[in-house]
Amino acid sequence: MSILDKFEQLRHTFERVGSGGHNPFSVAFDRIDSATEGVVDGRRVILLGTNNYLGLTFDAHGIEESVRAVQTQGTGTTGSRVANGSYAGHRQLEHDLAAFFGRRHGMVFSTGYQANLGMLSTVVGRGDHLILDSDSHASIYDGARLGHAEVIRFRHSDPEDLYKRLRRLQGTPGSKLVVVEGIYSMLGDVAPLREIAAVKREMGAYLMVDEAHSMGVLGEHGRGLAEAAGVEADVDFIVGTFSKSLGSVGGFCVSDIEGFDILRVASRPYMFTASLPPAVIASTRSALQRLAEDKALRTRLNDNAHRLHGGLQRLGLHVGPHVSPVVSVELEDVEVAVRCWNALLDGGIYLNLALPPATPTSRPLLRASVSAAHSPQQIDAAIEQFARVTRELGALPAEAPQIDFAPAHASAG
Amino acid sequence: MSILDKFEQLRHTFERVGSGGHNPFSVAFDRIDSATEGVVDGRRVILLGTNNYLGLTFDAHGIEESVRAVQTQGTGTTGSRVANGSYAGHRQLEHDLAAFFGRRHGMVFSTGYQANLGMLSTVVGRGDHLILDSDSHASIYDGARLGHAEVIRFRHSDPEDLYKRLRRLQGTPGSKLVVVEGIYSMLGDVAPLREIAAVKREMGAYLMVDEAHSMGVLGEHGRGLAEAAGVEADVDFIVGTFSKSLGSVGGFCVSDIEGFDILRVASRPYMFTASLPPAVIASTRSALQRLAEDKALRTRLNDNAHRLHGGLQRLGLHVGPHVSPVVSVELEDVEVAVRCWNALLDGGIYLNLALPPATPTSRPLLRASVSAAHSPQQIDAAIEQFARVTRELGALPAEAPQIDFAPAHASAG
Repeated sequence: MSILDKFEQLRHTFERVGSGGHNPFSVAFDRIDSATEGVVDGRRVILLGTNNYLGLTFDAHGIEESVRAVQTQGTGTTGSRVANGSYAGHRQLEHDLAAFFGRRHGMVFSTGYQANLGMLSTVVGRGDHLILDSDSHASIYDGARLGHAEVIRFRHSDPEDLYKRLRRLQGTPGSKLVVVEGIYSMLGDVAPLREIAAVKREMGAYLMVDEAHSMGVLGEHGRGLAEAAGVEADVDFIVGTFSKSLGSVGGFCVSDIEGFDILRVASRPYMFTASLPPAVIASTRSALQRLAEDKALRTRLNDNAHRLHGGLQRLGLHVGPHVSPVVSVELEDVEVAVRCWNALLDGGIYLNLALPPATPTSRPLLRASVSAAHSPQQIDAAIEQFARVTRELGALPAEAPQIDFAPAHASAG
Repeated sequence: MSILDKFEQLRHTFERVGSGGHNPFSVAFDRIDSATEGVVDGRRVILLGTNNYLGLTFDAHGIEESVRAVQTQGTGTTGSRVANGSYAGHRQLEHDLAAFFGRRHGMVFSTGYQANLGMLSTVVGRGDHLILDSDSHASIYDGARLGHAEVIRFRHSDPEDLYKRLRRLQGTPGSKLVVVEGIYSMLGDVAPLREIAAVKREMGAYLMVDEAHSMGVLGEHGRGLAEAAGVEADVDFIVGTFSKSLGSVGGFCVSDIEGFDILRVASRPYMFTASLPPAVIASTRSALQRLAEDKALRTRLNDNAHRLHGGLQRLGLHVGPHVSPVVSVELEDVEVAVRCWNALLDGGIYLNLALPPATPTSRPLLRASVSAAHSPQQIDAAIEQFARVTRELGALPAEAPQIDFAPAHASAG
């Protein structure tokens, strides 16, 4: 008898998934050479499964700023933001984020996970209601669990269902906070935010949007879905992360709400953790500036998203409903998905595998994602490998058009 | 009406605390010049309230390694450890940690907060019991809340009370996990770990020790309290942090338990967060090596701890029961504590203020902490300021010996 016996079934599943070659959940990179290339087990691969949407992890200015910060301010702060862990850079980054989003307040957390934990466990409390999209990220569910509000889920991206849930709560005391994401990380689908904002307005709820996967991706200025949908005025809290478009680690919230800063002495996941090291703050500030100034990054990213989404769709694969940097291929069968994932890796393409029950449709997903740093040739090479692997392993849906690879490839741009 | 109205009382308290000058919970450093010196509002201060126990944030080798990592591997991984976020360095650090502690397994988390959340919400589950020291850190309580085990508290550092609680659970199904800290962060007191380990053995429970404040501080080799108390064989899980002795940010767990690695696909705070940037991993590995090899750091740290603890005690101030790098002065009155904290800052000494109900004794604390990097002159300057400020503000306990400052100072070494 061991305290870990409860994981026997999970262990069995984990071992089975890994038995066909590499284990998709324990890949380690020998080396990372650029935003789009690395080495796994001695094999060079194209990185097609990261969240490095703007490719800024190797941005020369970001690296320079990071180097200068560690040399002048040291490797870490060894303290919480409410003790010795607030340096000028932390404050400046909060100011930069607020300015970028056109908000009055900004708050930086040590991880994106802790940003959601810190907001959702604190802004609402006992007697309040949290109304979550049912496909919310784990950090949103964990934040809800850590807090004391009553949690209600509505059907994924369904404003009518949201409306019904909120109507049932009419007359109950306490605040209602609706939480949605800009782009959902599994299928890359975009929330119907305009409709959700209308429901929120009508029902007098608050609205939080997690722009983790949409910041730097959507909107004229890259502010995310709220900007793209023209409903920023309806969004009370925007949360996000530094570990996707901004290429580092950390999280944030921006808001216009009166008295926002009280959360700094109320939010446990903000207070009871060491603050981000100066080098992380420095590269994040640099990346935010580049994101704001260099629109061409977004154009390249969206071109790459269309190229991959279109290319895979033309192969007859089931891709997500919207074109976004996350391009997931839904397969029928877990074992085939694992074999495809291995064959793609052996063919020089690293991407993510997601298995049910952790997928939205209870089917396995090969989750690819593109970066502004990908060349069209890299995207085409990936499509070529998808074509080969899915054909060889019989993973194309029965109704798939039998397209010869070459033309599909040639027309993918 | 606003969703933040629930914080009205807290806001009132926060504003009152800040009305006397600086607000102790929103200090921002203009500049950090070394492990022991910084600038606040244009004034140079000695840093006497960090967790930089070994002073390694400015270690030359750590900075070099960090610089090289960001230059060669980029500013971040943009992915979870179970996706694209495991680089060679993450694995090597886990190996280093396991080797340092003489354990078979090591696991790195993105923050120390998430290490406790990740372990406590996962290792025990529904039907299990978590038995926590009542003065546990917020991250331990939050991990317990995030998980599904039943939570029981025992009186702070009281093995007899622990024994009683465990005896009542005899015969109940499920695992029992006892959690204690090596050094408690508020008063710097050390857990009676030998006695706690004996209770654990007798009652057949598991034992986790959070060595956040004791790693690098206690034990012949710096492995913490479990080593110092000679009970490492009884400790099933050691958790710790990189943001104290190791001078960066992050957390870890090491263990000998069979099947440990299954936690990598079970622990949500491990899986659903971006991994640490290469630069953080690199400086942490460097610091761990220095911690292991340079015993003189620990000697200097303990000399400084004795110098400060002895000096403040000789002034007649109420300091904690054990000599450790955390040296807290308990005062009677919150307003006097706030005035003392401000006067110390104005006098060039930065330290932490802790207010009830967040303190173990329901009294305000001036929490000082020393580093191996402090010079004896810096410690003496701090004692001198304590003497001046507590005398001027009438903060010495009535029964305090009326010592003239100079001799106390002179004898403090």
